[in-house]
Amino acid sequence: MDEFEIIDRYFLRGSYPTGVVVGISDDGAVIENPAGEETVLATDTLVESVHFPVGTNALDLGHKSLAVNLSDLAAMGAVPRWALLNLVLPQADDDWISQFSLGFMSLADEYDVVLIGGDTCRGPLCITVTVVGTLPAGTAITRGGARPGDQIWISGSLGDASIGLGIVQAGVDPADPDEVWLMRRLNAPQPRVTLGCSLRGLASAAIDLSDGLLADLGHILHYSGGLGAVLEVSLLPVSPAALAVCGQRAARSSALAGGDDYELCFTVPRRHEAEIEALEKQQDHQITKIGEVCADEGIQLTGPDSKHYNVTGAGHLHNWPDGG
Amino acid sequence: MDEFEIIDRYFLRGSYPTGVVVGISDDGAVIENPAGEETVLATDTLVESVHFPVGTNALDLGHKSLAVNLSDLAAMGAVPRWALLNLVLPQADDDWISQFSLGFMSLADEYDVVLIGGDTCRGPLCITVTVVGTLPAGTAITRGGARPGDQIWISGSLGDASIGLGIVQAGVDPADPDEVWLMRRLNAPQPRVTLGCSLRGLASAAIDLSDGLLADLGHILHYSGGLGAVLEVSLLPVSPAALAVCGQRAARSSALAGGDDYELCFTVPRRHEAEIEALEKQQDHQITKIGEVCADEGIQLTGPDSKHYNVTGAGHLHNWPDGG
Repeated sequence: MDEFEIIDRYFLRGSYPTGVVVGISDDGAVIENPAGEETVLATDTLVESVHFPVGTNALDLGHKSLAVNLSDLAAMGAVPRWALLNLVLPQADDDWISQFSLGFMSLADEYDVVLIGGDTCRGPLCITVTVVGTLPAGTAITRGGARPGDQIWISGSLGDASIGLGIVQAGVDPADPDEVWLMRRLNAPQPRVTLGCSLRGLASAAIDLSDGLLADLGHILHYSGGLGAVLEVSLLPVSPAALAVCGQRAARSSALAGGDDYELCFTVPRRHEAEIEALEKQQDHQITKIGEVCADEGIQLTGPDSKHYNVTGAGHLHNWPDGG
Repeated sequence: MDEFEIIDRYFLRGSYPTGVVVGISDDGAVIENPAGEETVLATDTLVESVHFPVGTNALDLGHKSLAVNLSDLAAMGAVPRWALLNLVLPQADDDWISQFSLGFMSLADEYDVVLIGGDTCRGPLCITVTVVGTLPAGTAITRGGARPGDQIWISGSLGDASIGLGIVQAGVDPADPDEVWLMRRLNAPQPRVTLGCSLRGLASAAIDLSDGLLADLGHILHYSGGLGAVLEVSLLPVSPAALAVCGQRAARSSALAGGDDYELCFTVPRRHEAEIEALEKQQDHQITKIGEVCADEGIQLTGPDSKHYNVTGAGHLHNWPDGG
């Protein structure tokens, strides 16, 4: 099966919707430029045994390779429109490609994302996806707009994916539903596309959480001119599954430092607090206020006793009252 | 050196030109949509030991990874504007990255292409570049617009890159200047950006030659509704270096079937012939008419005696009068 056959069989649809002038099967794809809008581009590569373990199933990989990119668009507030896929495969395995395309195209369909180009070739398993979105000119949410006093909010729950990774690495098929759920959080993250678009005009800055809360919030603070943050540890959204599987102490560490959750972290001027609270009712996931941006550099963690705690790189809290 | 350091040190410029709203260092890049224009996207992955031999120098790879993508935009008639780079590297080797970025950024600067995003990570050497261009709405040159009677034209000379690959694979450093030149044609192809943009409104179809003339012209004929072509073999543009190194017979076979030249093959209605001839004076390379599109499917090759010849997959001509 050559490149054309793979594309034709698994990724080509009968016709393209409005906006696609030239799709797959030419040297380049051509898209219309909607008047008054800007185009947002994001791209991410997933490499086997770097970003996902050998043997990760193809359905999940198809989903995840698109999801992590849609998550980037969500963090900019963009509506996803088009995608390009570069697929490097060790061999043209029919079952694998059919499962991969199912995972990829199902998520694409969910958000009306149209695959308009890409290529396939032989080599070590490696997937690059580029996504293109649009938003009204001037409304992109960057990392650099946070101001002292802004509230810090988080979508969903934190730390699940890194606990899920631990379960995968243990190499035992989990029977416990909580463990299964945590592995789904790692392998099939849900990009917060609807939330991201709703944040335009409300959030002052946003980022998606791929490296972990402390690292990624650090990027917002850095690009916003060297600010700091105070986080209330007891407010960190931790899932019941994370608590059940590894207890509060480890769950909290994962919430602070674990990567791969693909939740959004965003900052909001106080005057928009009610609008953000109202937004939560429109989502199928929680949104949680966890702290505040401050002028002093660095991230401070406070406990229920209002005392400040230090945190190590792995997210462990020093001298936390409950021993965590 | 982590991802941010590599990008900051080698790929980040002080400021962005007009059109880039948000560049590198955010979740996505944001670009303006020029009014009345369409956006063209192309992407290609180069994998070590698939698309280039182990040990190919980093300067050439930086150039070539961008060049093959600019070549796709040229084949659409688009003005290149922006690029995204996904770099998978076995290790963060300072010398290698500095040479790679030099090759990439020099070519980018030559065409005012701005690097606006991408990522870097560890893994088997693999380079994905995505380029974004623009053109006036409705002017993209596709593969599907050729009509019977259109002339078939080629930029530059054909077959050099595949002869160059043979020299590289022989593993001996060439001393002969012709051999060195042929290797440059493989490792440092010049995308025909200026020509491609000039072809808007003149060419009825275009493609860039990556798989070889017969294969790529075949794509034009296929997407133009199942047409055919008659090529005059004696008109195929073969370089003096190719002739000197391997003789007329092998040079002609390479011209017909050798890949990786990244020249443009385009079809032109007869009424535009004079304009195409005038175009050649503005280029630093030749443009050659090699044949004509016809209604009957298949590619026919004619000799100086007007007889038709058959060709094998490798580009060899059966019963050619000079023995070639």
